[in-house]
This record gives sequence, C-alpha cells and structure tokens, in this order.
Amino acid sequence: MNKETTRIPLSVRRIAIDTYRENVAYMHRACSFYHTEGFQALSKIEVDASGNGNGNPLLAVLNIVDDETIIGPDELGLSEQAFEQLGIEDGARVFINHAQPPNSLQSIHRKIAGARLNGQEYKRIIKDIGQNRYSKIEIAAFLVACAETGLEREEVLHLTQAMLENGDRLNWGEELVVDKHCIGGIPGNRTTPLIVSIVAAHGILIPKTSSRAITSPAGTADTMEVATRVELDPDRLREIVKNQRGCLAWGGTAHLAPVDDILITVERPLALDSPGQMVSSILSKKLAAGSTHLLIDIPIGPSAKVKSHLGDGLRLRKLFEFVADQVGLHLEVVITDGRQPVGRGIGPVLEMRDIMQVLECQPDAPSDLREKSLQLAGRILEFDPDVRGGMGYQLARDILDSRRALTKFQHIISEQGPQEQTFTLGKHLHEVCAPKKGSISAIDNLHIARIARLAGAPMDKGAGVDLHKKLGDTVEEGEPLYSIYAEFPSDFHFAIQSASEDMGYTLSDQKAGQGDYQWQY
Amino acid sequence: MNKETTRIPLSVRRIAIDTYRENVAYMHRACSFYHTEGFQALSKIEVDASGNGNGNPLLAVLNIVDDETIIGPDELGLSEQAFEQLGIEDGARVFINHAQPPNSLQSIHRKIAGARLNGQEYKRIIKDIGQNRYSKIEIAAFLVACAETGLEREEVLHLTQAMLENGDRLNWGEELVVDKHCIGGIPGNRTTPLIVSIVAAHGILIPKTSSRAITSPAGTADTMEVATRVELDPDRLREIVKNQRGCLAWGGTAHLAPVDDILITVERPLALDSPGQMVSSILSKKLAAGSTHLLIDIPIGPSAKVKSHLGDGLRLRKLFEFVADQVGLHLEVVITDGRQPVGRGIGPVLEMRDIMQVLECQPDAPSDLREKSLQLAGRILEFDPDVRGGMGYQLARDILDSRRALTKFQHIISEQGPQEQTFTLGKHLHEVCAPKKGSISAIDNLHIARIARLAGAPMDKGAGVDLHKKLGDTVEEGEPLYSIYAEFPSDFHFAIQSASEDMGYTLSDQKAGQGDYQWQY
Repeated sequence: MNKETTRIPLSVRRIAIDTYRENVAYMHRACSFYHTEGFQALSKIEVDASGNGNGNPLLAVLNIVDDETIIGPDELGLSEQAFEQLGIEDGARVFINHAQPPNSLQSIHRKIAGARLNGQEYKRIIKDIGQNRYSKIEIAAFLVACAETGLEREEVLHLTQAMLENGDRLNWGEELVVDKHCIGGIPGNRTTPLIVSIVAAHGILIPKTSSRAITSPAGTADTMEVATRVELDPDRLREIVKNQRGCLAWGGTAHLAPVDDILITVERPLALDSPGQMVSSILSKKLAAGSTHLLIDIPIGPSAKVKSHLGDGLRLRKLFEFVADQVGLHLEVVITDGRQPVGRGIGPVLEMRDIMQVLECQPDAPSDLREKSLQLAGRILEFDPDVRGGMGYQLARDILDSRRALTKFQHIISEQGPQEQTFTLGKHLHEVCAPKKGSISAIDNLHIARIARLAGAPMDKGAGVDLHKKLGDTVEEGEPLYSIYAEFPSDFHFAIQSASEDMGYTLSDQKAGQGDYQWQY
Repeated sequence: MNKETTRIPLSVRRIAIDTYRENVAYMHRACSFYHTEGFQALSKIEVDASGNGNGNPLLAVLNIVDDETIIGPDELGLSEQAFEQLGIEDGARVFINHAQPPNSLQSIHRKIAGARLNGQEYKRIIKDIGQNRYSKIEIAAFLVACAETGLEREEVLHLTQAMLENGDRLNWGEELVVDKHCIGGIPGNRTTPLIVSIVAAHGILIPKTSSRAITSPAGTADTMEVATRVELDPDRLREIVKNQRGCLAWGGTAHLAPVDDILITVERPLALDSPGQMVSSILSKKLAAGSTHLLIDIPIGPSAKVKSHLGDGLRLRKLFEFVADQVGLHLEVVITDGRQPVGRGIGPVLEMRDIMQVLECQPDAPSDLREKSLQLAGRILEFDPDVRGGMGYQLARDILDSRRALTKFQHIISEQGPQEQTFTLGKHLHEVCAPKKGSISAIDNLHIARIARLAGAPMDKGAGVDLHKKLGDTVEEGEPLYSIYAEFPSDFHFAIQSASEDMGYTLSDQKAGQGDYQWQY
C-alpha cells in the first residue's frame, strides 16, 4: 500500500510554551484526522517532517487542547523545545505516528529484573536518550534501575564509554590538560576561580568550564557572571583558553555531553545521585573536554553527599580510579572536609566577594576557602613533571601571595569581557540570630543551600546567605548567625519562612572544639 | 512577619489543555511577582487558594509561557485536570509557593537503597500520591524501586492495606459477595459478561464493575458500551446491583481506589507489571468494592504476562493467597491457557458478537470463550455453600444452555439503559493471509492486541481484529488468518503497517496438534 495516499499531514505550529526539556505536542481534541485520545493514553507520538519515516522523527508527549485559539483541528502544536529540535518552518507539513517504544527499553526491563547489561546495551540506551526517544518517566526508570541494585564497575565503564561516544570530543594537542571537579553539595565551595587562576598562572593548561546552578544557590558560572561575561561561543572560548591557559566561563554551549544534560533534568528533581551515574557523568564530560589529568574532590560530612570516609568515600574513590584507568585518564581523588559550607558567602555576589578577598590576600579573607583552594591547586600543580612531589602547595601559595593569581584572574575576565551590569547585594536583609548561648556544633549544608536558593540565588545575583559563624564558634543569645539577602519580596518571604522552620544551625552548650577547617581527612 | 502583606496573589485561569493526569501550571516568563525560572528547575509549585497554606494546596509541574494570549504576567494558568482539582472560580486569587518534596520521598530513597519499608511508610507514600504530591517521575521512581528488588510479602500486605485505607469502601450487607479478576494481557478474553450473567442468574451477588482499556484494544466496559450505557452514577449502579445481583458497567466513577488509578498512568506507559504492585492493586480494589470471595485468573503462555506455571505462576499464586488471607478475603486462583487470544473478535463490536453467540448458544459460538467462561463461573458458583464441590461447572452450563444467562444479561442491560447509538464494524477491511501452507504454531497476544489497538479499538467500537485461525489450525497459502477492521484511514494505515512488519502468527510445516483450548493447566 502507498503510504503517501493514506497518511494525512497536519500543519505544524510553534506554541510559546517552554516545557523544560520535555517535548510536548498539542493537538485539538477534535483533530480532523487523528484520534487524539488513543495517542494520549499511550503517552508518546512520533512527529515526522519527511513524511516517509526516514530522517529523525521527533518524539513527544501529547497534550490535548480544547481551545482553538491555542491550536486548530488541522494543526499540530509543538512546545518551544520540540519545535526547535524539529528544525522546520511554522506551517510546514508534519505527519504523526504512534511512537514505537525504543528497543533499548527492553534492556531497562532487564536491568529492573536484576541483569547486568553489556556494552552494546548501554550504547543503545544512551543513543536513544540522546535522540530524545525516552520520556521523562522512562529516564526515571533507567536511573532508578541503575541506582537500586547498583552498577557493577564494568557497567560504569560501559556507560562512561557510551556517553563519551555520544557527543563531541575536544583535542587540545598538548600532553598535560588538567581539570578539577567537586562532586558537589557544599554551599559556597567556590574554589574553582582560585584554582584556575593559580594553575593557569603557573602555565598548565586548565580549560575547565563551569556550570550554572540547577538546584543549588550558585554554580561557578553564576558567580563569575558577577564580574565577567560567561556565555561565549565555543571558538572564542577556545581562543581565550589558548591565550590565558584557562577560562572562567559557562560550558553549557559546548554540547560535549548532551545525554548527561538530559539525565540531569530527571536526576536533580528526584535527588538521585548514585555512584555509578555520578562517576560516568563526570568522567565522560571531562574526557569529552579533552582532559588528560583530573583531580576529584569528595567532601565528607553529615550533610554532604558522602557521609563516611572509610565506607562510601573509599568505594567511590575506587570506582573513580577503576574507570579512569580503563579510559586512560590520570586521576587523583582527594577527600575534603564537607561538614559545613566553605567560605562565608552563599550566592553569586557574596561568593565573588569571598573570592576577591582571597585573591587580594586581605587579612579577613575566609581562611577555609583560601586553604582548600591552595591544597587542591597544589595537587594539580604536581601533575606537572617539573614540580617536585610535595612542593605543589608551597608553589600555589607563592603564586597567590605574589598576586600572580590575581593578575591571571584579571586577564581572564578582561579577555572574556567585563560584565556591564553592576550587581549589588539584595536590598532586603534579615538576620537569623542564635536563640541561646552556645557553640556551633553542626551546620546543615542542604538547608543553608535551600534558604539561599529560596532567597533568589542564583537568579538574583545579590541574593543569598552570608554566614557570620562557623563550626566551633561560640555565640551569645541573640547574636547573628547569618544574614539573608533578597531582591524580591516573595523570595524574601520564602527564605525567612524556611529559616524560621529550621535555622540549619545546631548549638550545643559546650564548645565543640572541632570547628577548624580540616582540608583533608 | 505577616504573610498576608508579603505574598502576592495571581489570578487563576483555566487553560483548555488536557495534560492526562499530570497537573500542569502555566506562568508567563515575565511574571510580575515570581521568578518563573527558579521554580521550573525545581519542577513543582504549590498552588494555594486559601492564602494561608492551610487547606489542600495543589501541586503542579510548571510550564513557562512566552505568549500573553495564553497567559498574562499577572495570571496563573492551570491545565484542565489541575483547575478542576483546585475547585475554584476562574479569576480567583491564588498564591504560589515552592513545593516541598513530600516527606515520604525519603522512604522511596530508602527503598532504592534496598531497605524493606514498614506499614507506616507505605501509608505515607500512598497518602502523598493520593493528594497528588508526587510528580510522574517520582511515581516512576516508586514503581521501579518496588519492582527491582521486589517487595517482600509483608510489604505487599502493607501496600494493600495502605491503598485500602485511601479511598471509600463499600459494604453490601451480605455474607457472600463475589468477584473475578483476570491479571490481563490476553486479547478477546471477554469472559466477564458471561460469568456475571451466569452467577447473577444463580442469585449470588456479583457487583463487579469493569474497566475501560488503557493500553489494550478493549476493556469489558468498552465492549459492553456497544449494547448498553456503562457510565452510571454510583447510587444508580448500587440500585441495579441490588435488583439484578450484578451489573455490567464501568467502575471508573466510583473512586474506590484513587491511588491505583494514579499509579496506572505511569505503570502502563512503562509496561511495568511487578507482582507486588499487581497483587496490592487488585486486592485493594476488590476489597474496596466490598467483595468477600474472589476468583483470580492467571493465564499462562509465551506471550502472556506469566510465562511459566511452576515458576512465576506459582509464586504469584502464593503471593495472592498470602495477602488475601491476611486481609480476610476468600480467594482462589485458577491458572488458565494464555497461549493465544480467547474467542475470535478483538475490539468492542467483534467481542460483543462473540459474547452474544455464546449467550444464544449458537452452534458456531467460539468454544474456547464458552468453555473458559463456564469453568470460571463454575468455580465461583462453588463459593455458594449450597453448591456441592465439583458441581459448579454443570450448574453453570445448565444456566447458560437454558438461556437463563441470556435473560439475566438482557435484564441487566435494559436496567442500565439501552445504547442509543448503533455500532457497526469499521468500513475499512484488510485481510492478513498466510504467506505459506502450514499449521499455526504460535499467536503473539501482544502483537495482535497492538494491531487491533492501532486499527482504532477501543475508541472506534467497530475497529479491531477478527481471527479466522487459532492454534493448531492448518492453512493453505493465501488463506486469511485474520481481518483488520478500521473506521479512520490513518488508523487503518497504522494497523496494516504493523501487521506487514510482523503478522503475529507463526506457521510451522507440521501440524502442531497442541491447539485445542486447555482451560486449565
């Protein structure tokens, strides 16, 4: 039978609805040619611009519309994401079809049944996800299936390789290309601008790009944006890295790990962070960026992602090492103090203040941020064969104290282009005070991050939390523990409400005496 | 601080988009008071009509709109489902808030980590799901987490009890209230109208309500709708059951197991059907409907849900028995032949034809449908203490052959109200023929169901598949195996395309000799 005569096209129309990384198609309930309800229960339709099923059909969840001003009966609406992906003109003809479930879903069911998947299966899964053939609930099924019984280390390797093959890979043409990565979860932990400045000042290539916050109160890119342009096209970014040996920009435009970006949109809302997914995500991204040497920072603490050094911390370290060795990446892991936020400020403007204090060697600069940055930078400097083992820390300190790191930082931001807007602290200020005398025995990273986020960080650069007391400090009743800054009244309200339910600090009667920052366990 | 002065209301507006059981809220990107992007990344917002956080706030996924004709900057749009749930007027004031993740998500994470959850945890999970506090990806996480490491039988009991507590429960005030349930997956398996007619004719109370198809080509309610009204309000339905001892209506309006209805919207697209979820879903629904005695039909076959009698089939039977005993339900399990569709027709009109042939004792009535219905009805009749063990089948046959079942069927449909519309077979007909001479050695239930569904069943009553050959039959080359009926050209095309890729029949050279229906293994 002749497909051309039996398949009826709809006219495509861009619907100005941003559905956040889920393709959504809109059809009128009284669609002239297709039965909308049959499609809807099955969840997904295939939208095909070619009319012959070749090319790359788009998969979308179907929403049924009962209002002709939104979509007419002869039209197919597509959400902004979906429309862009299809890449055709408004009004063009499209054909729709029942979406076949991707074949690789069978492997997901095998994983749910407890099987160990092989390399081919991971390749097919990652390819299908990369082509947007998975709905969000299918991605959730994949992630939970991997998290629950865990991935064997060979599976993590397969997954890493599959992610690596699905995307571009940079080649810097140098033998030593370094990077650092923290597994996250510690607010204010803004060591990257300091480390990049120190390492690039020494002359090692560190083409690290930074992320924006997804669920945290700031990513390095959000913070750097206070001082400089961070959204640069990939060619320009490459030029800056070659000139300055490093950059302090957002990596989002590079499309180096497209599947990882998709997985993250489900992992974050689910607060899923399984070791296998984490290791494959980080390593595939770093390899795609062309790194040869990588330092991994695993903070440990009661409210950090990893709670114990000898249990989870050690297993995670071994997993990083196994996969890195197999894919030819020189990797070192450091275990750091994750018992509380690093530095004082949480939120872009506040974090930038802390960074400048350290770079300018101000006497009141937060010592934990300075110390941690020097230690990590020192370890990276020792990747250089010409740096004697054990001398990295001292070298890093010399570069910082001689203001060479500050100069490098200034060169990088001037080449990226200065920020034209001036960002200041949020105009609404609320102080959270100690309800009684005592000493600080615990600070909840997650809750402090949540308060800063609710206050408007990172969307409002000047919003966030400024910590006045850290672990081991003693306070009098009524003394301020931290300040909340916000720009918008609604955000200010949300943040204060959250802090009043739980201030995130634990006070004990005796001095805990355990407060000083230990850079490494 | 005073909430009233800091929280700013938006004007709520119903958006005529049907988002299929996921609450979606629409805000303009340039919303006057709230930062849309901060909300979006966190996935969910809380919509509160009371302004004080009391009452039951609605949870919704946020879509950002860039078109003021869809939603203005001072407005909050809600999808049809969400708007109905909130139950307020168009234009009323609503307040929005960052959605707190439901507390019970911590138990989901414990389950993912391999823990066994207790009764309290299941209660909280089911309560939160019942209040629409879970997004679809969170429901997917729960279902996969339960499927992967499996639920211990105590957990299935906890889950059943939690589902039972969350919804209404009927009490018929009689000692013997029977029901039957097939775990599904076999097309054309329309024994319910026959069994209800036989059992009700005998006088046992069988208040079984039926479902509509979600992903199958017909549910009993879809098929019955060919002959009668099936959507009746709960009070009327109760009256009919009391008058007739049974009914043949849709159970969807009764809201007996609201959480199960929500879980199904994620289970079906994921094709998840884990034993624990299945048992708790079925038993909680039957108990809520007031049943005291239940017959469970587990079909076994290569393309049935359960493949082996002694393996999966036995484990599933034991699980049903364990939970039923604990919750005080008298339950019997029968294992039936699930190697192929039952009867000939698949799709509402075709299935109704088969049913009438059996009820009218026509000589060419499909013998497998008749036989299976008699056997199951016979087992149910034996729940009656006055029926001697082993005599149920004979009694059922007498009721059928004496046309008492037919009379009962006619009384029920006349009391439910006759169907005013006349449904006929779809006008497009395509025959799928044997590509060679041979005997039918396998019929793929799933694929035949898919073809019938693509042809338009159950939305088009006259669409579906009519089987001319069953297991063990011999065919000549070119002889028709089955016919496809469709109403719409696009559906006709989809069904033929699918049948041409895979006809769903396996032909072997020798006569298989295994075709006769075995009602029980």
